[in-house]
Amino acid sequence: MTVSVAILGASGYAGGELVRLVDAHPSLEATYLGAHSAAGGRLAEVHPQLARGERVLGGIDPPSVPDVDLVLMALPHGASTGPGIAFADRGVRVIDLGSDFRLDTPDRYLEAHGAAHPAPAALTRWMYGLPELFDVTNARLVAAPGCYPTAALLGLIPLVRAGLVDAGRIVVDAMSGLSGAGRSLREDLLFGSIAEGVRAYGVASHRHRPEMEMGIELATGVDATVVFTPHLVPMLRGMLVTTTIPLLRSVSREDLFEVLTEAYEGAPFVDVVDRSPQTRWVVGSNRALVAPFVDEPSGNAIVISAIDNLLKGAAGQAIQAANLMLGLPEAMGLPAAGLMP
Amino acid sequence: MTVSVAILGASGYAGGELVRLVDAHPSLEATYLGAHSAAGGRLAEVHPQLARGERVLGGIDPPSVPDVDLVLMALPHGASTGPGIAFADRGVRVIDLGSDFRLDTPDRYLEAHGAAHPAPAALTRWMYGLPELFDVTNARLVAAPGCYPTAALLGLIPLVRAGLVDAGRIVVDAMSGLSGAGRSLREDLLFGSIAEGVRAYGVASHRHRPEMEMGIELATGVDATVVFTPHLVPMLRGMLVTTTIPLLRSVSREDLFEVLTEAYEGAPFVDVVDRSPQTRWVVGSNRALVAPFVDEPSGNAIVISAIDNLLKGAAGQAIQAANLMLGLPEAMGLPAAGLMP
Amino acid sequence: MTVSVAILGASGYAGGELVRLVDAHPSLEATYLGAHSAAGGRLAEVHPQLARGERVLGGIDPPSVPDVDLVLMALPHGASTGPGIAFADRGVRVIDLGSDFRLDTPDRYLEAHGAAHPAPAALTRWMYGLPELFDVTNARLVAAPGCYPTAALLGLIPLVRAGLVDAGRIVVDAMSGLSGAGRSLREDLLFGSIAEGVRAYGVASHRHRPEMEMGIELATGVDATVVFTPHLVPMLRGMLVTTTIPLLRSVSREDLFEVLTEAYEGAPFVDVVDRSPQTRWVVGSNRALVAPFVDEPSGNAIVISAIDNLLKGAAGQAIQAANLMLGLPEAMGLPAAGLMP
Amino acid sequence: MTVSVAILGASGYAGGELVRLVDAHPSLEATYLGAHSAAGGRLAEVHPQLARGERVLGGIDPPSVPDVDLVLMALPHGASTGPGIAFADRGVRVIDLGSDFRLDTPDRYLEAHGAAHPAPAALTRWMYGLPELFDVTNARLVAAPGCYPTAALLGLIPLVRAGLVDAGRIVVDAMSGLSGAGRSLREDLLFGSIAEGVRAYGVASHRHRPEMEMGIELATGVDATVVFTPHLVPMLRGMLVTTTIPLLRSVSREDLFEVLTEAYEGAPFVDVVDRSPQTRWVVGSNRALVAPFVDEPSGNAIVISAIDNLLKGAAGQAIQAANLMLGLPEAMGLPAAGLMP
Repeated sequence: MTVSVAILGASGYAGGELVRLVDAHPSLEATYLGAHSAAGGRLAEVHPQLARGERVLGGIDPPSVPDVDLVLMALPHGASTGPGIAFADRGVRVIDLGSDFRLDTPDRYLEAHGAAHPAPAALTRWMYGLPELFDVTNARLVAAPGCYPTAALLGLIPLVRAGLVDAGRIVVDAMSGLSGAGRSLREDLLFGSIAEGVRAYGVASHRHRPEMEMGIELATGVDATVVFTPHLVPMLRGMLVTTTIPLLRSVSREDLFEVLTEAYEGAPFVDVVDRSPQTRWVVGSNRALVAPFVDEPSGNAIVISAIDNLLKGAAGQAIQAANLMLGLPEAMGLPAAGLMP
Repeated sequence: MTVSVAILGASGYAGGELVRLVDAHPSLEATYLGAHSAAGGRLAEVHPQLARGERVLGGIDPPSVPDVDLVLMALPHGASTGPGIAFADRGVRVIDLGSDFRLDTPDRYLEAHGAAHPAPAALTRWMYGLPELFDVTNARLVAAPGCYPTAALLGLIPLVRAGLVDAGRIVVDAMSGLSGAGRSLREDLLFGSIAEGVRAYGVASHRHRPEMEMGIELATGVDATVVFTPHLVPMLRGMLVTTTIPLLRSVSREDLFEVLTEAYEGAPFVDVVDRSPQTRWVVGSNRALVAPFVDEPSGNAIVISAIDNLLKGAAGQAIQAANLMLGLPEAMGLPAAGLMP
Repeated sequence: MTVSVAILGASGYAGGELVRLVDAHPSLEATYLGAHSAAGGRLAEVHPQLARGERVLGGIDPPSVPDVDLVLMALPHGASTGPGIAFADRGVRVIDLGSDFRLDTPDRYLEAHGAAHPAPAALTRWMYGLPELFDVTNARLVAAPGCYPTAALLGLIPLVRAGLVDAGRIVVDAMSGLSGAGRSLREDLLFGSIAEGVRAYGVASHRHRPEMEMGIELATGVDATVVFTPHLVPMLRGMLVTTTIPLLRSVSREDLFEVLTEAYEGAPFVDVVDRSPQTRWVVGSNRALVAPFVDEPSGNAIVISAIDNLLKGAAGQAIQAANLMLGLPEAMGLPAAGLMP
Repeated sequence: MTVSVAILGASGYAGGELVRLVDAHPSLEATYLGAHSAAGGRLAEVHPQLARGERVLGGIDPPSVPDVDLVLMALPHGASTGPGIAFADRGVRVIDLGSDFRLDTPDRYLEAHGAAHPAPAALTRWMYGLPELFDVTNARLVAAPGCYPTAALLGLIPLVRAGLVDAGRIVVDAMSGLSGAGRSLREDLLFGSIAEGVRAYGVASHRHRPEMEMGIELATGVDATVVFTPHLVPMLRGMLVTTTIPLLRSVSREDLFEVLTEAYEGAPFVDVVDRSPQTRWVVGSNRALVAPFVDEPSGNAIVISAIDNLLKGAAGQAIQAANLMLGLPEAMGLPAAGLMP
């Protein structure tokens, strides 16, 4: 069985990784590559690293996309709403890597994006696609989570669910490589602006905060309040999320370790580790590493997670969800090992 | 007037910066350079970037150090205790960039270092040398603060002193360039281990946490509890500290801005800024940038500080203290502008 | 059919890539992992990025290595001679990624290494394993080429063979990422020594110069003289080789392009390209890009080649040779696409 | 005496360094800062690293520039011709860091830029401002050299002048940090395009080749032919130039060393060194390091030079020339030591 796949937004960083993963996947075949401004050009012009660069990019307008078994969309914010609804109506399986369908309610969307959702009724049809924590097996429309929420929620949800930590006072500080900021032509993304420096951005206003709160609430039923500060660090890939959260009772590091280990038993891509994880250990793979600590003087848990923001944080997680939606082995075609150095 | 200076630990990263700054200072002259394992060799062998590389390094043993007006020590932890006491007894002015004399009590030292101070009585003779917050004008023995505490305390102390934030629940997440880890030959400091990656270290156990708590308590009289997680990011220099701290009452970002601005009126090296500061804006200079934010949904202040860890976080701050101790203009010989790109 | 493989030197950078590639290869299985100082420990301690990190490393002594179909050795210079001879005597297929068996004569070895080969008679039994230019199909003992010679020879040999360029006056300047320098604990390989800087090394004395001359002479019968200057640039992976070589007659860039294209027709991993290639386009893949130029005012050809030094320059090329030696498809199990960004 | 200075092009990378150096210079004062698109804004918006960021940028039109003692121009190619002629007519001293007035003849300009000079008569009025090799003491109009020619010519001219090397067969391969490519908003200058990669550019066509040939010819009277291939490496600052050039007679490395040392006796910024120089040893300073080697098997000299492309390669060299033109000490206000790490 070969599943035909259309990849829309193939010219971006996440889109390029989707093409690479689908090209290497034993059961998927990319039969259509679509892009916005790069439409009409060849794949090699935007992704010289990929094989078969002579493939021509089509557009992203749904009518121009042929019938396929699965549509993967990696489009800028706002650009997936229209195509997402169109493909949903067509009855095809869709995984959206963007942020248009991630949030569960119009209010949450408004809080995250500062504007009303253009088609709020559509929100309820999409499943939040973090496969270790939400069952996507029967979903046909999946909104893949943001990279920061992926890393944060993998560490937080099992602890909140176990009643060990206070979800009302979560502090998430996170560091991302530059590929997370996308491929836009912005002065603040030049090598001359980024190398040898670090900065916070979206302070007190990043759209991933409401998504994290939603994830906790959907998975545990516990109200959550998150303070989230993301930082850009001078590297291409990788994401580290450091979460500080008050303990609700006296527990040891071993207790946290056990709860997390149990939560991810059988999960092919999440490893609970007993040393501070490094992003380099996961870059190039679809793995997530999670490590719990206890800060005894202050009574806080500290949980550190590491992922490749373009794989487990984007394209890899989407293929993982696709595998499950299609009844394939969860880990099929996904790299289990990273590249180092 | 020329002040003669001995620099001990001249072969390390902070030591090299001390030599560079003293060489360029109109009123200081490095008359003695001492090092441990590099003793006997020439300066150019350990610091090819410095001028007059033909200078020969002596040892760090106090008897071998000639009479000078000022001793600057940048030695590994534990190595300044002996020389520090010897020079203090000699009556000379000393600034120690290490951690041997920074903490005010034997208990705090034990908490930070996991071992008793070898000469606890000496601790009381040293002044904590963060010049914007502690008056070092009349001090003869100064312990220059750690880099992380410098950046964190500049943002925290004015807010705690003003009664605006809850010092009992401070979360400090920080990112440092590699020069902060020193010049040791360690596998985890190889380019192949560091580039393109980020990691936390010293989680729930870093010695700078007690120092931060001490700084707040000494400056404000308020008990403090800090959760501190430092991270290494792949850059040579620069430090960013992101502090999350509950507000005690409803204040606006402008209120925080005003309190901080007032606290640093006339301070030549601290700028309170209204956008998220980047380390690149300060690297190469002795400046510190501090920016306050309010996270309204959670009722927290977020304060972000940026410094060059080797200048305002080490050698620059030491020269700043020296200027004040010697009755010279506070900013003399210190770079007001950074290098960018 | 599954081919059992022993990987000796599994703890190094090239060794880690061998493990990753063999683990992902449909027809190879790593049944033994050997290391020198890391012997006795687990794979995860030296390669936290790899899957099944619980595997225990054995030693590299031939008697301790079980019977396998293929031995891959990635050992420091000098360390493969003994094991290489032992495995050769055992009759097993061996690919040595080191420099012990690469050179064809004792004289060339002496020139390259400044010391006589310890077992010169063994040299003749090994095949130089650059599969696009030397047929390894029937070889049982293969010495995989150095990374610099791989990149340089792919560009040079077809042009020399066609009589277009003067092999007696070749200038090769090359730039390598740090992984090429290996994982040794050296002060000059610290992040603090490497980041934000570039340097030449081995000037007028690098051992890869004689290997380049040998490659040209074996493949074309033309005597060659190469001036070779390698440089370290601050990146983990990737190698760019810029070759300047006098034209013997007036040819156009299109002529060079045609000769090279014809030479690599059907080669799955070499692409002749018409724009200046970037290392980023090949990192993560086994591809080599080669681009010819003509500098008309001086009458020189300029040929630029890009490879991933750990893949086409080391582990990938070894697996490519193994595929051919074993009668498998040349590209089996090798990544055709790179990772970018 | 304070010399009033106008800096035009203050918003670029070289312009920012001019502001920094003039601000720190004991005898110069920046009384006017001009920029093109940033005109009307404050200095801090384009150079947050500089002191007194509240200064407002004016335009670059000569009529809007007040009377000053010295004009420094760091404008894009083509943009200095008009202002340069206008200021020359005004009789003011001018140093142009751009490429409009560097070449000595209209033919050379045409060769370098592929277009005729818009005002060829003006070319003869400008002096080529490489102070160690051309006397600028009495010049009023100086064209500061390009960064690549600066580094290459410092190594080449003394050897050609001494008749030791064949100027007709020079191969220059060079590596530059990204700041050399300027601050333009180009996709190929994004961090995501540059980090972890290296590339050649301007192959067989870079405009600095004719400038190098001119420098040799003007200084030595010997016709020169240069093959020049520049490369971008992933670092902010620093430039390394590796030159390979046939020896005309049998000389030792010591001979080359002696010729170069003698040539730069008394030069405050050029050091002839006996080991392979690293860019990190000069970044942050106005120094140039030059190291000669002999490749005996091929009969070539290899000369390696390292500079900070923004200092000795641009702004620092301009201030050095200004000092000489103004009768000030050559090294005044220029950093003798670099920053490391």
